[in-house]
Amino acid sequence: MPPKTSKVSVTQVSEWDDGKLRTKSDYLAAEEPLEIRIGEQPLSVTMRTPGHDQELAAGFLFTEGFIRAGGELLALDAAASEDGKNRDNVLSARLAAHATPDFEKMRRHFFAASSCGICGKATIDAVRSRVLLAPDPNFRLHPRVLVGLPDALRASQETFERTGGLHAAALFDASGTLQVLREDIGRHNALDKVIGWALLAGRVPLSDCVLMVSGRGGFEIVQKAIVAGIPIVASVSAPSSLAVQLARELRQTLIGFLRGTRFVIYSGPERIVGE
Amino acid sequence: MPPKTSKVSVTQVSEWDDGKLRTKSDYLAAEEPLEIRIGEQPLSVTMRTPGHDQELAAGFLFTEGFIRAGGELLALDAAASEDGKNRDNVLSARLAAHATPDFEKMRRHFFAASSCGICGKATIDAVRSRVLLAPDPNFRLHPRVLVGLPDALRASQETFERTGGLHAAALFDASGTLQVLREDIGRHNALDKVIGWALLAGRVPLSDCVLMVSGRGGFEIVQKAIVAGIPIVASVSAPSSLAVQLARELRQTLIGFLRGTRFVIYSGPERIVGE
Repeated sequence: MPPKTSKVSVTQVSEWDDGKLRTKSDYLAAEEPLEIRIGEQPLSVTMRTPGHDQELAAGFLFTEGFIRAGGELLALDAAASEDGKNRDNVLSARLAAHATPDFEKMRRHFFAASSCGICGKATIDAVRSRVLLAPDPNFRLHPRVLVGLPDALRASQETFERTGGLHAAALFDASGTLQVLREDIGRHNALDKVIGWALLAGRVPLSDCVLMVSGRGGFEIVQKAIVAGIPIVASVSAPSSLAVQLARELRQTLIGFLRGTRFVIYSGPERIVGE
Repeated sequence: MPPKTSKVSVTQVSEWDDGKLRTKSDYLAAEEPLEIRIGEQPLSVTMRTPGHDQELAAGFLFTEGFIRAGGELLALDAAASEDGKNRDNVLSARLAAHATPDFEKMRRHFFAASSCGICGKATIDAVRSRVLLAPDPNFRLHPRVLVGLPDALRASQETFERTGGLHAAALFDASGTLQVLREDIGRHNALDKVIGWALLAGRVPLSDCVLMVSGRGGFEIVQKAIVAGIPIVASVSAPSSLAVQLARELRQTLIGFLRGTRFVIYSGPERIVGE
């Protein structure tokens, strides 16, 4: 497996006006392309932080609608690229016979030969068609647990201490206990790794947990979380209008600006209840 | 043009333990898909903040290698999606006769039927093939100007005050004077808007300016900036290993962790000189 961080020599300027340039070594988050295939058919290249690649590929295949359940994925094999090198950066999925991914639909999804209108509504309808089970309306989270999640996330982000460059996604149960945390240079990859972990462990749909992400709760995050059945998504920053629209239509609870003891509920406030 | 922000009613929780939930109105960054075509051929759908769409499309076509100069782009026309609706979210490019975009190469680029190895080196070589003019080796920036850029960026981000959810990219000259600033929910879109602005104004290659971006200096940012000939890229956060590798190989100056009077030079320190 390629390393998750790499060491480089950099020039650090502590106080520019003393005129000194110091050279030191620093760690950087690694970023390498990962190609995901079904059999011989290439689907996507994503720039990702190496590590948990099987989970990333499994989560990607599921949240983007290529497979509908973990049982449809028989194996993920390291594959050689066409020049015979770089087996670290290509994964090929073997699917069960009953799995029938719609490549043409996927091609439109990624490469945009859209036959429908290009607008927020069409985008939301496309997500709706991938949802197997609506987010559990009965899942509840105490506000005290919710406000503790950012600190719990940061405390678990060991790599963050070294590079400062990684996004994180983590699942917690209703008592605030960490289930899984994954990091990546791409926020959507971190979430695909988390969902892939759950899928490979037979834990999807994720109806009894809350997702906490670093950064922003954008459309892609909400979309992937909804496909996996996650009832509550929380982030420390702002969501986008389309993320809020999607969460409201598909009845997911969306929390933003979760900082200190404050937060904003953009959708589904009924799931956030105290004693 | 669709609005750049949208007003929504949200539930704000100021102090959860007083048990009060207050409802207020809040502004959110708008996020809508934009489809970019060449003629009838769809190329890409990007989730973007509406506004400066012509610049976004022009910058995208240039930084992704579909056109090699502003003169190859004759016009960008609003087009109807196939159901005849949503002319706001589709732009179709008319190219000059001498423009010959390599659709097959682009298809591989986006949809990943890679014929070369999937690795950092192949990725960097692909960028190298799109560079028209290497970043100017003689451009210099005084550290005093450099450390003033984050505040200058924030001061110009009017929308940020309302939504807290937008990324920004801005060009400054060697004296620290703002040339252009664009915002978007996607960092790469903000940069495409900036580069598209320059392209439409006949100012590419951008050999005498510094690019400041909010967030992280990742591979995509460095790649687009290099294609546009920008000699210095600065961000407040960490770059990735592949971004540093790319900047070093193509001789671009890359600055990270630009905060207060401190910064880290990851590549090209010779361009950062005081008196």
